[in-house]
Amino acid sequence: MTPARGFDASEFQSRVTAAQTAMDAAGLSALLLTTEPEVRYFTGFLTRFWESPTRPWYVILPASGAPIAVIPSIGADLMSRTWVRDIRTWRSPAPGDEGISLLVEALGESLGETGRLGIPSGPESLVRMPLSDVQTLARRLGDHRIGDDHGICRSLRMIKSEAEIAKIQTACGIADRAFARVGEIAGADVPLSEVFRRFQRLALEEGADWVPYLAGASDAGGYRDVISPATDDPIAPGDVLMLDTGLVWDGYFCDFDRNFLIGRDDDAIQTAHSKLIDAVEAAADMLRPGVAASDVFHAMDCILTGGAGGSDAGRLGHGLGMQLTEWPSLSANDHTVVEAGMVLTLEPGIALADGKMLVHEENVVIGATGPVYL
Amino acid sequence: MTPARGFDASEFQSRVTAAQTAMDAAGLSALLLTTEPEVRYFTGFLTRFWESPTRPWYVILPASGAPIAVIPSIGADLMSRTWVRDIRTWRSPAPGDEGISLLVEALGESLGETGRLGIPSGPESLVRMPLSDVQTLARRLGDHRIGDDHGICRSLRMIKSEAEIAKIQTACGIADRAFARVGEIAGADVPLSEVFRRFQRLALEEGADWVPYLAGASDAGGYRDVISPATDDPIAPGDVLMLDTGLVWDGYFCDFDRNFLIGRDDDAIQTAHSKLIDAVEAAADMLRPGVAASDVFHAMDCILTGGAGGSDAGRLGHGLGMQLTEWPSLSANDHTVVEAGMVLTLEPGIALADGKMLVHEENVVIGATGPVYL
Repeated sequence: MTPARGFDASEFQSRVTAAQTAMDAAGLSALLLTTEPEVRYFTGFLTRFWESPTRPWYVILPASGAPIAVIPSIGADLMSRTWVRDIRTWRSPAPGDEGISLLVEALGESLGETGRLGIPSGPESLVRMPLSDVQTLARRLGDHRIGDDHGICRSLRMIKSEAEIAKIQTACGIADRAFARVGEIAGADVPLSEVFRRFQRLALEEGADWVPYLAGASDAGGYRDVISPATDDPIAPGDVLMLDTGLVWDGYFCDFDRNFLIGRDDDAIQTAHSKLIDAVEAAADMLRPGVAASDVFHAMDCILTGGAGGSDAGRLGHGLGMQLTEWPSLSANDHTVVEAGMVLTLEPGIALADGKMLVHEENVVIGATGPVYL
Repeated sequence: MTPARGFDASEFQSRVTAAQTAMDAAGLSALLLTTEPEVRYFTGFLTRFWESPTRPWYVILPASGAPIAVIPSIGADLMSRTWVRDIRTWRSPAPGDEGISLLVEALGESLGETGRLGIPSGPESLVRMPLSDVQTLARRLGDHRIGDDHGICRSLRMIKSEAEIAKIQTACGIADRAFARVGEIAGADVPLSEVFRRFQRLALEEGADWVPYLAGASDAGGYRDVISPATDDPIAPGDVLMLDTGLVWDGYFCDFDRNFLIGRDDDAIQTAHSKLIDAVEAAADMLRPGVAASDVFHAMDCILTGGAGGSDAGRLGHGLGMQLTEWPSLSANDHTVVEAGMVLTLEPGIALADGKMLVHEENVVIGATGPVYL
């Protein structure tokens, strides 16, 4: 059953409360949020308008109370439909002062004379505003008063609520139904670019709101990489066709792939594919609260390379949610402890002859006793 | 006729040469590029993998010679298919040193002991890497050696080549054909979210590679904003349905909208729509090399508000190309001089009763004597 869109205000309130508890422990008087998922996580502000890079958007999370939106006036109406009540706007674009004075004033109310500001600054973060404005902000507030958010946004977002999991599951179900219909749209002699278009149409037909990500390849004996856009070259008999999609339902992603042998069987590919499934199962067997992401990596890597330590992909899975890829990484250097409520991809890849590869990907949620496939 | 995909190496070479001439004038020994369009503009590296925020990607443009790619190893194969030959990789994710040491080393070759580095830092830019890594880079290179790119990327990208214009024109043609078929997919009682899905399918059917942007609304007597995602509410007879799409062909966007009256006529909407067309024509009449963007704004604003100075949208059009929105803005505060080869949207909006509005948008390229509709 398709879940309801959006979240209850209570969900946003509990995210804010959890952040404020962590801010208190870290000695932070406010968080500054600038990216689409950060803003949406605390406000529910959902729009594809972030595709336009022109305007910065700011949300301040004070040490107590609700978030404050400091945003371009073009977004005021949509933001007023969220639970946020303190909405301050400027008419953007305004290159001379792109909301910075308004932001500094609003931050001042939370920070006072001595409070410290946290901005997500660590791995897999970015600050979505011009660098010159970051510098202006640091000058106006005092450089020493600005620091990292101590991983607060990361820690919160890594653990999904039931309502978030239901949205990801809905996205996965849509992709699953689209993959089941690939036989209708792909085959020998169809250009790969046309297969990409048709697959996106299937995903929309099956209920995706939009399809931000599709990559893949079609080649004999495996493919050279997993991030390429489609060429206009036709699929050839004997190819392995791989489609990897990140489609969105109500702002949440799935991220998994499927491989298809075109026209005829291929023992080497079948053998490799079985090994990928073995690796997924080895990961699933050990995935439960308390194990380290790096241990899951090693269990898979042992099957895939005999323990060589991985490949150029750098990891064998990752977090998933409001973004196509999130923390943690299933990699040798990520020792994050797995917790219930994490949604992860298991994404083993295997090297084949001639520099080619085969990659398989599944999405799971971590329950109290182990993973559940989504 | 659909143009060829990609660009000749000579096009990248001439972009690089133009940048290097400007770098010489600005006293910069290298540019550091971190965002999708910046990297693609100089290399041709085209992938939807940027949807994953995990890994930073770096391209260095030295004072002479070709670009140097400093990228995650997962992208090496795809980058090797561009004209770039100097490709340095690290196995990412590597949160302890996410390519920074490799980047500093590569920058050192271009900067020597005293050279200055330019990073796009002005309006509508961002630096796509964690803030903590920006700070590490500044510490390692010396803060005083890093500054803005002096608007070099902006200046170059604002003027489109013939090949770029052909791609934008192709994207516009696809959207045009999809808009012509809206009657097939929309009507009273169809949920707006379903219209959005069907419109994206039409866009793909007509040849879009993907549809990064779709916004719109359906309401009586105009709509409240132009950035909202679709609700599941059905379209009602008498509504104005507006669809605004940014679809992509070979990495280049169109960005325009169309309004549809559902079921019955509405004099107020027709009158407002005529005024929007008048504003577009007033802009088109004066748009030629040498006029200021702000003058074009005032010509439109005069018709729309009687010269009140605009609305909450902040502008009445903007640049268009590798991104949905680019410089310049047709706004009171943007005095950029229009040049041949700019691709612009003309996007007048008009206020209606009850806080509602109507917006119309066209895409044009600036020729030697005036605009050509795309």
